[in-house]
Amino acid sequence: MCQLLGMNCNTPTDIVFSFEGFRRRAGLTDSHCDGFGIAFFEGKGVRIFRDNHPASHSPIADCVKQYNIKSLNVIAHIRKATQGKVTIENTHPFIREIWGENWVFAHNGNLKDLPDMSDSFCQPIGNTDSETAFCYMAEYLKNRFKRKPSEIEIFNAIQEVTKELAQHGTFNFILSNGEWMIAHCSTHLHYVMRKAPFGKAHRIDDDGVIDFSHYAKDGDKVNIITTFPLTKDEPWIKMEHGGFVFFKDGDKIAEVLGTPKEIADDGTLGDCGIPTIQAA
Amino acid sequence: MCQLLGMNCNTPTDIVFSFEGFRRRAGLTDSHCDGFGIAFFEGKGVRIFRDNHPASHSPIADCVKQYNIKSLNVIAHIRKATQGKVTIENTHPFIREIWGENWVFAHNGNLKDLPDMSDSFCQPIGNTDSETAFCYMAEYLKNRFKRKPSEIEIFNAIQEVTKELAQHGTFNFILSNGEWMIAHCSTHLHYVMRKAPFGKAHRIDDDGVIDFSHYAKDGDKVNIITTFPLTKDEPWIKMEHGGFVFFKDGDKIAEVLGTPKEIADDGTLGDCGIPTIQAA
Repeated sequence: MCQLLGMNCNTPTDIVFSFEGFRRRAGLTDSHCDGFGIAFFEGKGVRIFRDNHPASHSPIADCVKQYNIKSLNVIAHIRKATQGKVTIENTHPFIREIWGENWVFAHNGNLKDLPDMSDSFCQPIGNTDSETAFCYMAEYLKNRFKRKPSEIEIFNAIQEVTKELAQHGTFNFILSNGEWMIAHCSTHLHYVMRKAPFGKAHRIDDDGVIDFSHYAKDGDKVNIITTFPLTKDEPWIKMEHGGFVFFKDGDKIAEVLGTPKEIADDGTLGDCGIPTIQAA
Repeated sequence: MCQLLGMNCNTPTDIVFSFEGFRRRAGLTDSHCDGFGIAFFEGKGVRIFRDNHPASHSPIADCVKQYNIKSLNVIAHIRKATQGKVTIENTHPFIREIWGENWVFAHNGNLKDLPDMSDSFCQPIGNTDSETAFCYMAEYLKNRFKRKPSEIEIFNAIQEVTKELAQHGTFNFILSNGEWMIAHCSTHLHYVMRKAPFGKAHRIDDDGVIDFSHYAKDGDKVNIITTFPLTKDEPWIKMEHGGFVFFKDGDKIAEVLGTPKEIADDGTLGDCGIPTIQAA
């Protein structure tokens, strides 16, 4: 099972407090040890750090912590590969250029029998279902709109292509172009919206504590999206099956509510990074 | 003026000795202070580190040094922006997916009146001539070959599209897909081929010395391509105007000799990162 972490804010914020809890799940409090990746947007640019070592012990993750990068949009992923090699090219988040923007995507789930992309303009580099799905999405969007459309058109188009892809299996994802962040829930995804008055929060994974009032100022808005809550004492919202949230500048600007669905804990729901099974 | 550094080997090699001299040119022995980037291939995957701080003082560059990544193909770039913002999205090397592979590209030069790419499938994200030229190349190759052709077809196609782009100005570049490395010289590009018997080399930029015989074994082959030689006591080969080299697994598998050309040192030849000037 993999786990996802995303952050969207209205002021450049460092994600160290959340990431330090999250990365412990890669070997210490959980077993997502098959590499990690984290992408920080900086304007239209993006810095991506990846490692095929567990995030909890990776020197690359230590470097990320030390460098204390502040960003409006961050996406991170820790991987547990049930099948498929532990390689850099199979490490989330994936990145593609769409309409002259960097788009960054991380997935938790398990998609089967995805369309063959080997004659497409946008092709997967590794052999995960996740990257294939992202390429399918990129190709769909580029073919549908030659130039960047309005945000609401983008949000609608992403819902449509997601509906198509979700027929192939479990499809929790976080996606950002550096301006906004969209998350879709199939099974497990939670978010919390931090704003004034800021208080204390205790991390679940190591009891680390922070008082956000020492770091944030009135008017700051920070949204954290993740597979399972990272803190004990904050009002995390559980997304439902089929739900979408669309965050921009720290605000939730659109939402599609899902439907509650009994989730069978059969161990397959959280898989990711399985090899693409091409349609015949 | 920017500078380029590339390495192609037949055994995973760390580039620290060369990079430590090269990065001094970003503020200490020369003035290429407007950011840097370095890409390490690892199989089909690639790790790219970028910073908009000078490579000589960047904590990201320190992290690269500490982590001691070994790779068969590495491309690095230090930037001196004469025009155009110092931002992450304008930082070389640039990366695009072509035929399901990561292609990495770094440029030193100055291209004017490049074609407008705003309706293309592959669009630039920043506003440099370099990224626009790379997108033009990617679009050309993808349109010409739906699937990956033979290496010789790739090399020939790159020569053709380079001829077209070089009409727009100075176009020194290094390009790799992780399997091979191609370099083209308009004005300044040198390479050295290291193989047994290995001996000592002295860095030009800080007199650092290495005895390669302590690190390399018989049969190892390492090619270093760079704007200006990095060591004093090695047989660097100066490429000529219009020349191409094609390295794979530490061997030069193809070459197009250029023509000697008097190069005016008017200060413009080495520019890079200028804003794209769109054709009307």
